[in-house]
Amino acid sequence: MLRFLTAGESHGQALVGILDGIPKGVPLCQKDFSDLMKKRWDGYRRSPRKNIENDSVEILSGVRFGKTLGSPIGLLIKNLDYQNHIDSMNKWELSPDYKPLTTPLPGHADYAGGKKFNTDDFRDIRERASARETAMRNALSVPARKLLFELGVRSAAFVRKIGSISSNISENYSISEVSAALEQEDASAFLTPDLSVVPSWKNLVDSAAEKGQTLGGMVEVCFGNLPPGIGSHTQSDLRIDSRLAAIVLSIPGVKAVEFGEGILQSQLEGASAHDSFYCEDGEISRKSNMAGGIEGGMTNGMPLVIRAFMKPLPSTCGLSTVDIKTMKTVAVKPERTDVMALPALAITLESVISIEIASALIENFSGNTLEKIKDLVS
Amino acid sequence: MLRFLTAGESHGQALVGILDGIPKGVPLCQKDFSDLMKKRWDGYRRSPRKNIENDSVEILSGVRFGKTLGSPIGLLIKNLDYQNHIDSMNKWELSPDYKPLTTPLPGHADYAGGKKFNTDDFRDIRERASARETAMRNALSVPARKLLFELGVRSAAFVRKIGSISSNISENYSISEVSAALEQEDASAFLTPDLSVVPSWKNLVDSAAEKGQTLGGMVEVCFGNLPPGIGSHTQSDLRIDSRLAAIVLSIPGVKAVEFGEGILQSQLEGASAHDSFYCEDGEISRKSNMAGGIEGGMTNGMPLVIRAFMKPLPSTCGLSTVDIKTMKTVAVKPERTDVMALPALAITLESVISIEIASALIENFSGNTLEKIKDLVS
Amino acid sequence: MLRFLTAGESHGQALVGILDGIPKGVPLCQKDFSDLMKKRWDGYRRSPRKNIENDSVEILSGVRFGKTLGSPIGLLIKNLDYQNHIDSMNKWELSPDYKPLTTPLPGHADYAGGKKFNTDDFRDIRERASARETAMRNALSVPARKLLFELGVRSAAFVRKIGSISSNISENYSISEVSAALEQEDASAFLTPDLSVVPSWKNLVDSAAEKGQTLGGMVEVCFGNLPPGIGSHTQSDLRIDSRLAAIVLSIPGVKAVEFGEGILQSQLEGASAHDSFYCEDGEISRKSNMAGGIEGGMTNGMPLVIRAFMKPLPSTCGLSTVDIKTMKTVAVKPERTDVMALPALAITLESVISIEIASALIENFSGNTLEKIKDLVS
Amino acid sequence: MLRFLTAGESHGQALVGILDGIPKGVPLCQKDFSDLMKKRWDGYRRSPRKNIENDSVEILSGVRFGKTLGSPIGLLIKNLDYQNHIDSMNKWELSPDYKPLTTPLPGHADYAGGKKFNTDDFRDIRERASARETAMRNALSVPARKLLFELGVRSAAFVRKIGSISSNISENYSISEVSAALEQEDASAFLTPDLSVVPSWKNLVDSAAEKGQTLGGMVEVCFGNLPPGIGSHTQSDLRIDSRLAAIVLSIPGVKAVEFGEGILQSQLEGASAHDSFYCEDGEISRKSNMAGGIEGGMTNGMPLVIRAFMKPLPSTCGLSTVDIKTMKTVAVKPERTDVMALPALAITLESVISIEIASALIENFSGNTLEKIKDLVS
Repeated sequence: MLRFLTAGESHGQALVGILDGIPKGVPLCQKDFSDLMKKRWDGYRRSPRKNIENDSVEILSGVRFGKTLGSPIGLLIKNLDYQNHIDSMNKWELSPDYKPLTTPLPGHADYAGGKKFNTDDFRDIRERASARETAMRNALSVPARKLLFELGVRSAAFVRKIGSISSNISENYSISEVSAALEQEDASAFLTPDLSVVPSWKNLVDSAAEKGQTLGGMVEVCFGNLPPGIGSHTQSDLRIDSRLAAIVLSIPGVKAVEFGEGILQSQLEGASAHDSFYCEDGEISRKSNMAGGIEGGMTNGMPLVIRAFMKPLPSTCGLSTVDIKTMKTVAVKPERTDVMALPALAITLESVISIEIASALIENFSGNTLEKIKDLVS
Repeated sequence: MLRFLTAGESHGQALVGILDGIPKGVPLCQKDFSDLMKKRWDGYRRSPRKNIENDSVEILSGVRFGKTLGSPIGLLIKNLDYQNHIDSMNKWELSPDYKPLTTPLPGHADYAGGKKFNTDDFRDIRERASARETAMRNALSVPARKLLFELGVRSAAFVRKIGSISSNISENYSISEVSAALEQEDASAFLTPDLSVVPSWKNLVDSAAEKGQTLGGMVEVCFGNLPPGIGSHTQSDLRIDSRLAAIVLSIPGVKAVEFGEGILQSQLEGASAHDSFYCEDGEISRKSNMAGGIEGGMTNGMPLVIRAFMKPLPSTCGLSTVDIKTMKTVAVKPERTDVMALPALAITLESVISIEIASALIENFSGNTLEKIKDLVS
Repeated sequence: MLRFLTAGESHGQALVGILDGIPKGVPLCQKDFSDLMKKRWDGYRRSPRKNIENDSVEILSGVRFGKTLGSPIGLLIKNLDYQNHIDSMNKWELSPDYKPLTTPLPGHADYAGGKKFNTDDFRDIRERASARETAMRNALSVPARKLLFELGVRSAAFVRKIGSISSNISENYSISEVSAALEQEDASAFLTPDLSVVPSWKNLVDSAAEKGQTLGGMVEVCFGNLPPGIGSHTQSDLRIDSRLAAIVLSIPGVKAVEFGEGILQSQLEGASAHDSFYCEDGEISRKSNMAGGIEGGMTNGMPLVIRAFMKPLPSTCGLSTVDIKTMKTVAVKPERTDVMALPALAITLESVISIEIASALIENFSGNTLEKIKDLVS
Repeated sequence: MLRFLTAGESHGQALVGILDGIPKGVPLCQKDFSDLMKKRWDGYRRSPRKNIENDSVEILSGVRFGKTLGSPIGLLIKNLDYQNHIDSMNKWELSPDYKPLTTPLPGHADYAGGKKFNTDDFRDIRERASARETAMRNALSVPARKLLFELGVRSAAFVRKIGSISSNISENYSISEVSAALEQEDASAFLTPDLSVVPSWKNLVDSAAEKGQTLGGMVEVCFGNLPPGIGSHTQSDLRIDSRLAAIVLSIPGVKAVEFGEGILQSQLEGASAHDSFYCEDGEISRKSNMAGGIEGGMTNGMPLVIRAFMKPLPSTCGLSTVDIKTMKTVAVKPERTDVMALPALAITLESVISIEIASALIENFSGNTLEKIKDLVS
């Protein structure tokens, strides 16, 4: 079993994370981390913060001579901009000039968290609720991604839809083709294998930016070459779709998740909704993957396909809030932030799902059957 | 924290479940259980099994003088039809006449489970993977439902869509109105407050039944009067949307989940996608609930709205499979089962979500702040 | 990972338990359960309840054709004496004749539980706090014991000391010798391989019984042929001694636990306290086992030795309590119960430790190293 | 619920830890950390490492304006000596001069861990298995200790025995008296309130040091003013003694734990072994505390008394091992390390128990009864 904890506020001194349970012997290098962290900042019209933070990951423990030790892996990402926020994020002293944040942002954790923690300064909440925490979860995913890679698992993550404009991606795409397409020069700003949609998306995002608006959309992550039987039908919390749904919905901004063609399936008759088996050349095979690689709470050997729907970022024009100091309704003043964060969402989903799948996969080979465990012990 | 385990095969001797952590003093009676279990069997064109099983729940422990004891609650549902399945489900002896099940059903756990547990008899898998397990989770939800009721929480569960035909339910409906509508005479067969859609749904289901087809659809569950701040933004696995997504996807057949208007939100610009705050009569209020009652991984005081998309039941005509004994492609022969199970899904979702919300709500009042915990200890 | 829950009050309708995670294919028969449950009632001067309860275990799920299915195992033990307690343990109605129990028993959960659950009727607490719950944990251990047996693990459990009188057991005993000695005719009443101590123990127990007194003592459990490396040094809660200490202290009445010669070790200088390695015939070996088979939070390949110290049963003469109805100090009136329960404790410890070791052993073979997990996946 | 993870090797770059679940509003300052970390290095004849490491704790997150935020607390302790170990602990490169450690130390994790992780270089194991990890658990305890302090809980930790020489501490001591005595000038080297034992202990330790020997012993931790009812009798893993035993045995070197007078209790008759209740001035009271403050798996309102038995440190003269490269038996060459670490053990136990008690106490006030939870919600 893999487990992790993260800590750190958005404008605090650092993010820190610990990942426990990675097997001994997984090869790792510093570049594995920097490559991933760079990808997370790619994306059209990202916040100006990308010019400040390089998100360099310091590996504090769990790695020796280029391989994991089997011990917990401790990671640190310093916030380069911390000193500029020292008045609002001072650990010990309250500056006399400090102004509490008294206008809860709709769509953010402010209001609910203020009630929970009985505070009138929403910065107490917003700092930890920020999606910046996912920078550390991305970093923590690196050993899990490398483990899956060593086992032959391959994955791809891309943006399917921004606002109401869909990209055009062939059904039954192969992961290697999509991965190659994502390497194209203009693909990274929108993380799409479909370059034909880029101009419309650019227009859409520019137009939203002009209006001070933000955008949401839908991303897809696909994992290939997974062995069947990861997860279990035997107890409800062991189902891999249950575990993955929890992981997907743990990313700030995600409001819905779909496995395979789940929404379409719900509208079809049974015969069209399921993936028949055929015998070809003495092997069991399938011609479709409506199920997205999961049946009965387990991987079924077909590619695992997961889609996440993200609402627009909340820091947008056109909303009202209430200043709880004055109890007056006021307009939301958006911070200079991203217009949309779909590419980062896709990368982050691939990261957190990699951790969860690596975890389930390790557990899965812990001796499901007496025969297997006898082999293992001897 | 509430936790539970269930056990039992679909055609085995009994289902059994244990729920741990219910506070002392929650009033309970036998009728609470029978009323809920009856609702689960309502629904148009259910399987003939409904004529055999009455799903009478035996309370074995944790209740004394009509109230919960604070001890774990043990429940038993005997399978009335067990003796008719004694050859295939014998605990100790293998009958010489027994025929293993060698054709994996597409859309079910058979194939993946067979790989996991290294078996050629898919009955080893199918018996536990069956949605019959949810009968016990419904039963276990009763003390959680009663606890929520005592705290003033109210909920409603209904079918929104069968196949591609939607019901018509007013935006910003009230839970009490929907609940009243669901009590109408013709509402229970389809568990909808919109009687106008019933004739079309009846046609749709009849037509599917004639063709040996099954149907899926979409259901909605809504909880009102929940205090804000249930769940937490502070660590990813504490987010209430993450926890609820796991619960929803743990129900067999569910392939997607949406919180509030999550899918619609993903297509809108920020200004239309979020729920602004207003000050009215000195109170903070809102005019919309796009977020479905969750922001920042916490309840926000608005009604909690959750939607689940279910694929058609897999026991349907028109699919092919492979007999792994002969390695020949053969047609799936459907069992006489339900045509659709949407009403049961809606009830079950309300049940499992009740358990999870009761759990999160109890944890929530464990002293989030030093002030509160000082009060509690003194 | 194995996990379990139990439910049931001491004089309630039934005990029920669920064990989740046992691999598929472990052979089981009804006699495995009845043999163990009978052993638990053996023992000199046990309570008269042993004449009423046969503790017959009903297997409700998880077993098919004489082998485990990989699904959760549900077990039921009906209380044969329930009808005689229907007034005090009625699930639904409070009888007008019922007298609450208002005198908390020193040494039992009554007082602390009454405070926790805010009750003046200590039967609300005592019923679940009773050691009768361990009957179910014994039953749940059967599949774990069988799994360990199939893997070649052997164990023995015996009483080392009653009150202040020790038995005489040779250092470095072998598990098979002790097991054989425990099969002797007069061994079962006191579960000791040392028949020479039996007359003194009989006198001690008879004398205590005459005075209305109870006795405690010390028991030992030993597991041989365990592979090294079960548990882990990498995170504090993964240490096998930490896990086992929790299990041992979860048995009512146990107040101390010792691994190997831990208490003696604490009084020696380093050179005498540790188990040196030697090379003999090209193999690493050891001549002592002061560590009791655990180093660094892992099994080290030597026999695992665990000792538990039990206080005397609390239902004894010579204690005073306070009737919280009258707030008067009164003498404790002991129930007709066991004089000592050391043999049952030894069996129970062997049971609960079997579950925990089987759990840790299964997890242990989940791919600690990349090499191993590559083998497993391929 | 509080949870934590730690990471870091003994001679690696840093120790890192995350504590999740501390309520909002607990006052904290840097000195709280430095005072505790200093205490841990006090103690007679500690290893020379105490001259290198100052164990300065960097608070990375979870604290704002001198109070906890309710967010996870991330802590960092840099290893000041890391550069001197860069050859053996290099994260990325294997130096050509590096010599693997091929002689497993008896009494340490080397051998068992080498088997588990399939390595011939025992430094892979020893680095994480070192008790240095407990420096971070001490640091993580600070917010928990402050929380308990704010709630009025008081504790004391001291050494009871070194080798076979006991200190003389009055029965029914008060925590405040012991705490005062521990502040005396000569008390800190041995962390004892009994200065009369200091000369004998000094002789014992000096004499062991001359012989290259190490020593173990026994320590005691006591917590006063805890509310009754922390923990629960309702499920075995909720018992506070079970939870605390796990915590105590998670400290490297501890081989036994005793609650109250548990070992003595096991040798007495019932009447002398339990703590009778009396009514005095209309209040229930007790004259003894044999139970050490725990009955039925819950705190009972009396002081909580826990004792841990530690084996001598393993780096001692007089042991043999096997060089697995040559398969020759060789003498253990001890490192220059502590002669005994009892004072550090006492402080560490107080730390880890503070975390666990704070966790159980927070959970405890999560609404055990419907009445209470109704109050909390309203």
